[in-house]
Amino acid sequence: MIDATDPTDITAVINTGDDIILHGLHVSPDLDTVTYTLADAINKETGWGLAGETWEAMESLRAFGDERLGWFNLGDRDIGTHLYRTSRLAGGRSLSEVTAEITARWGIGVRLIPMTDDRVETRVTVADPTVGEVEIGFQEYFVGRHHDIAVRGLRFDGIDRAVPSPGVLEAINEAQRIVICPSNPLVSIGPILAVSGISDALHARRASVVAVSPIIAGRALKGPADRMMNEMGHDASVVGVARLYAAAASVLIVDDADAALVSAVEAEGLRCVVCPTVMSGPMEAKALAQSVLSIEMAP
Amino acid sequence: MIDATDPTDITAVINTGDDIILHGLHVSPDLDTVTYTLADAINKETGWGLAGETWEAMESLRAFGDERLGWFNLGDRDIGTHLYRTSRLAGGRSLSEVTAEITARWGIGVRLIPMTDDRVETRVTVADPTVGEVEIGFQEYFVGRHHDIAVRGLRFDGIDRAVPSPGVLEAINEAQRIVICPSNPLVSIGPILAVSGISDALHARRASVVAVSPIIAGRALKGPADRMMNEMGHDASVVGVARLYAAAASVLIVDDADAALVSAVEAEGLRCVVCPTVMSGPMEAKALAQSVLSIEMAP
Repeated sequence: MIDATDPTDITAVINTGDDIILHGLHVSPDLDTVTYTLADAINKETGWGLAGETWEAMESLRAFGDERLGWFNLGDRDIGTHLYRTSRLAGGRSLSEVTAEITARWGIGVRLIPMTDDRVETRVTVADPTVGEVEIGFQEYFVGRHHDIAVRGLRFDGIDRAVPSPGVLEAINEAQRIVICPSNPLVSIGPILAVSGISDALHARRASVVAVSPIIAGRALKGPADRMMNEMGHDASVVGVARLYAAAASVLIVDDADAALVSAVEAEGLRCVVCPTVMSGPMEAKALAQSVLSIEMAP
Repeated sequence: MIDATDPTDITAVINTGDDIILHGLHVSPDLDTVTYTLADAINKETGWGLAGETWEAMESLRAFGDERLGWFNLGDRDIGTHLYRTSRLAGGRSLSEVTAEITARWGIGVRLIPMTDDRVETRVTVADPTVGEVEIGFQEYFVGRHHDIAVRGLRFDGIDRAVPSPGVLEAINEAQRIVICPSNPLVSIGPILAVSGISDALHARRASVVAVSPIIAGRALKGPADRMMNEMGHDASVVGVARLYAAAASVLIVDDADAALVSAVEAEGLRCVVCPTVMSGPMEAKALAQSVLSIEMAP
């Protein structure tokens, strides 16, 4: 999307429900993944962490032999980010202030805002084959259990007291176009929509909101969105996505592979736009961004 | 000392007043220095940290450009230790439990016990040339200011509520011989002596307590002990050391260089033993340990 428009015109509101305090460090996986990606510093093979990382701290931690401690990989240079964030938060800065500092250090033009400066913690009730239903943290589910376990429930702990970070509602109110990016609707977009005021703000701007379906031909390109939607009683299809976003968005972009579902999507009350959505490389990503930006919206 | 006797016969009670929460990590500099030294893993050039360290996390932290955050060097593998300690403490383990785990991982025979499992924080009032007298944390003084500033006061915050770790008083009560090692009497030994019950226990075992002077010919071999003793109104000599330890120890070992001060030391009520005390290498360290162990104590 950087190539399709001026990055300094973009404000990205990022999920923080995945954040975790790990060994004392405040880790913000979604903020960091977006930051490292936009800085072209991401490890492209894994999709997270920094390219060319070293793992000395992690190996040292694992040398203590406690398997419960080594499940979340922290690269050495990535740890520098977490040391910085933790230190600044302890010094009284808000997460959105620290995020602005971190993105400035990486020279990122896009403005990143955490959805809230308050603590929100996505909790996942999973069906553990040995102990039955148990609620665990999102990263325990996603990383620790390799999202390889059935989900029975989702809860955003702290959401009742969370307010949007400074600038979030203004960005929604003033944006020319609002894009709900192709990400897990339940655990990546869901927490953002659940922060007090954000759903209402999107609803008020619904005519300018375009969502891109993360589900293509019934599958998520990566991650557990398809299984999770099924497990949580949603239709793992563009129609299921349309139902989840119908209140917030007026347009849903679906992949060519789902062209046959246009009328089913539109029956949910959204206009359906069909185009290639698989971002297999920078050119495909740019083309998708241009599609998103060129859609004529209702006035 | 490992060579002079069976290490598993030794219990070492370690100062924790230098401990610091740094960027969210619980750092215990004295415990780690003793651990890494006994594991023969210490960086011998610096006297702290691990040999052969990498510094990726630190460089990443410094890349944010905030000079106030980079003053305390944390090597990548050393960070693994702090991640482990912080995680285990957050999980409800005591510092002495975690210390036992850390020394086990390094295969250390000596039993290390932190002086207390409670938070004690050595605070240093320094005469800042620009802002006047100001109280700072010990590591800020020692590392951040390179102990290159006059000390006006010392305070062990939390000492009133601190109790000895499990095993400390038992070790003192049951030891054949108790050694106050050659370390800074005010900020390395001082906090240990200030923990409730430890001074009394040493006093009761005074006939078995040997102190080794860290001051040789009026100078500390390294660190600011000599200046600090002067600044705090103590005589920076073996006589000043004798005064500080007279209640706890019955013997003070002084270096050959201080042979002329034997009678002045003994006037303080301790027996004075003269021998080489400079541990310039393992053989010299072993010889000193043998001297300490071979002294005939009063019954």
